[in-house]
Amino acid sequence: MLENIFESVRRKHPLVHCITNYVTVNDCANILLAAGASPIMADDIGEVKEITAICNALTVNIGTLNARTVESMIEAGKEAARLKHPVVLDPVGAGASKLRTDTAFRLMDKIKFTVIRGNISEIKTIAKGSGTTRGVDADVSDAVTEVNLLDAVRFVKEISRQKNAVIAVTGAIDIVADAEKAYIIRNGHPMMSKITGTGCMLSVLTAAYCAANPENNLGAAAASVAAMGMCGETAYKKTIALKGGTGTFRTMLIDSMSNLDLETFEKGVKIEVM
Amino acid sequence: MLENIFESVRRKHPLVHCITNYVTVNDCANILLAAGASPIMADDIGEVKEITAICNALTVNIGTLNARTVESMIEAGKEAARLKHPVVLDPVGAGASKLRTDTAFRLMDKIKFTVIRGNISEIKTIAKGSGTTRGVDADVSDAVTEVNLLDAVRFVKEISRQKNAVIAVTGAIDIVADAEKAYIIRNGHPMMSKITGTGCMLSVLTAAYCAANPENNLGAAAASVAAMGMCGETAYKKTIALKGGTGTFRTMLIDSMSNLDLETFEKGVKIEVM
Amino acid sequence: MLENIFESVRRKHPLVHCITNYVTVNDCANILLAAGASPIMADDIGEVKEITAICNALTVNIGTLNARTVESMIEAGKEAARLKHPVVLDPVGAGASKLRTDTAFRLMDKIKFTVIRGNISEIKTIAKGSGTTRGVDADVSDAVTEVNLLDAVRFVKEISRQKNAVIAVTGAIDIVADAEKAYIIRNGHPMMSKITGTGCMLSVLTAAYCAANPENNLGAAAASVAAMGMCGETAYKKTIALKGGTGTFRTMLIDSMSNLDLETFEKGVKIEVM
Repeated sequence: MLENIFESVRRKHPLVHCITNYVTVNDCANILLAAGASPIMADDIGEVKEITAICNALTVNIGTLNARTVESMIEAGKEAARLKHPVVLDPVGAGASKLRTDTAFRLMDKIKFTVIRGNISEIKTIAKGSGTTRGVDADVSDAVTEVNLLDAVRFVKEISRQKNAVIAVTGAIDIVADAEKAYIIRNGHPMMSKITGTGCMLSVLTAAYCAANPENNLGAAAASVAAMGMCGETAYKKTIALKGGTGTFRTMLIDSMSNLDLETFEKGVKIEVM
Repeated sequence: MLENIFESVRRKHPLVHCITNYVTVNDCANILLAAGASPIMADDIGEVKEITAICNALTVNIGTLNARTVESMIEAGKEAARLKHPVVLDPVGAGASKLRTDTAFRLMDKIKFTVIRGNISEIKTIAKGSGTTRGVDADVSDAVTEVNLLDAVRFVKEISRQKNAVIAVTGAIDIVADAEKAYIIRNGHPMMSKITGTGCMLSVLTAAYCAANPENNLGAAAASVAAMGMCGETAYKKTIALKGGTGTFRTMLIDSMSNLDLETFEKGVKIEVM
Repeated sequence: MLENIFESVRRKHPLVHCITNYVTVNDCANILLAAGASPIMADDIGEVKEITAICNALTVNIGTLNARTVESMIEAGKEAARLKHPVVLDPVGAGASKLRTDTAFRLMDKIKFTVIRGNISEIKTIAKGSGTTRGVDADVSDAVTEVNLLDAVRFVKEISRQKNAVIAVTGAIDIVADAEKAYIIRNGHPMMSKITGTGCMLSVLTAAYCAANPENNLGAAAASVAAMGMCGETAYKKTIALKGGTGTFRTMLIDSMSNLDLETFEKGVKIEVM
């Protein structure tokens, strides 16, 4: 079933409006192009409404938050809602400062999000209004493991019900759920956390997948998480073969996305439903 | 003739002031260094005049436009005019929003541009005051092809006359023209559109080429377009040999520029005059 | 002695708050991760105090200076001082404009810096209140050479005494000194100046090294300079072996940092005390 979702991104070339941080913005643009989608970055209040209107999806990312762009996020988010475009929130570092936590809540109050994607600490923060993060990384004590998986799934479904959005929690084990159904995804590699931007890239990718699959946002989010994880696995293998490090890994991650084909996707997905 | 132009960049090491977008700014800096030039990025109104004064050329790029930096572009542009430095405009996404279109016109009104470089949709927009772009990519219906080439050349010469600037339209076939003379350049590879930043990189490179060749801005613009296109061809060949994807291609593009020598340039140029 | 310093970064995983420029910010994040540290980029006045408080060190870099972030730098710097966190200043382009020179002085007036790292022209500027830089590169006439080394060391020690901070001057020969003691480091490769960001990356790395070695800031700064230089040497060798250019070199530089182990570090350090 996820194969059709994967294929439709390459067939439909969705255009994704990204209001995102300046740390990983280049990687976000390149991963979208590698996946068959197109990026447009625009954050000035004077144009975000129009830019959203010519796109097929919107991502807002609070990674290098500043007062100027929050208003642009809200304006773009309202227009996306009006046009029924999918909107993805990446609450980078929610829990790390009051400003980030408050902004994540303000955005959730003003914008109808299709998917909220973060690490477990960020998602706990947006569930509870407070949390502990280690900067922009998840707190180790929060990690989803085989031992606490059932509880974690129940928790993610409950947040999805509360927020009325698909929730994607990524880490060693990924959970993508709505209120009723959860996908557990075991693709990926730990080296993905040794470069900056894998989370941000996944968020814009998820927007592209949802845009190309409007009838199935949950499946689209799960497929994008699986695709990104598979690319991490392939990139790791290539990096090791080349005796490379994290610089090579970053390049190979983009390569893997641009070379990912349907057959590899079908064979590589490690997913179960709960 | 273009060989001397190519050589002079490596000999003179021009310093290029870039007021550019935050998506591809790192690539812009690295392509300038790879070509033998040097970048300086500075966009605060409090220093742009001084920074322009210590540089040899200026590029303004509206890719992630915001109110703060437009004033800086105008201030820098005036100083560059006073010092007779070449100034390149990259009207990224002109036509995609009223703000971008209006800003491109405002910049053309306030600044004497030496070269305006964009895709065909952006150039049509600045010619006509309106246009259709697909985000930051050209509209397919606008594409320059062998069939409409003569008309396209006439059109580009006419815009050059109107705007009193060299116009560089890049795509599958590139046209670089002033009111009298056009270079048709057939270097390049479609993979260049599968990574972000090739247009932005070309614009800063063009500024460096013009700075090193003040007596021949048309030739300098044509040579920079040809050089970038050749690097795209070389990068594609290396990427395929390595079974790589778009991540590898991006790295190989910078490599190709840093390794491009006079002999390769001479042999590789695919150019004709119309 | 420097070996323990190197090891402690990988053992302690310091979290570094970076208020830095948008040109090289992605490289800064990736070099910290490659070295075993973690980055967080945050520059809004509404959160910098809190972000600094959850980190172990702070870097401020004036590479794409603007009015908004200078106040954030000062606010973060004060909080770092209160918490006795190491703070590194990278005065990128000091001397290139009055704004940059004045801002560097204002920051030195308001913030107690642990280390100030720049090229010789930037350091001369902050010593004398004026200077000549070629954009963001050192003026050739300023270069530290074997001939003027003793004078240069005396000069750097004197600035360290004046500024009450460790001074790291990087170039063909690096000098890292406090008022009493100087390390002369001969690691590195000229290709490091052919990509953007090696200086910025070194500054955030120095913050991580100081955070992991609070009892020895001078040694920590020297070790970070040596580590970065060694990675430049390794990256150059790999680039040549691959017949690559500056794009490959950039990737290999990050690779080298992520693969740098204690044995390689011990064998590779080229350092003497003066």
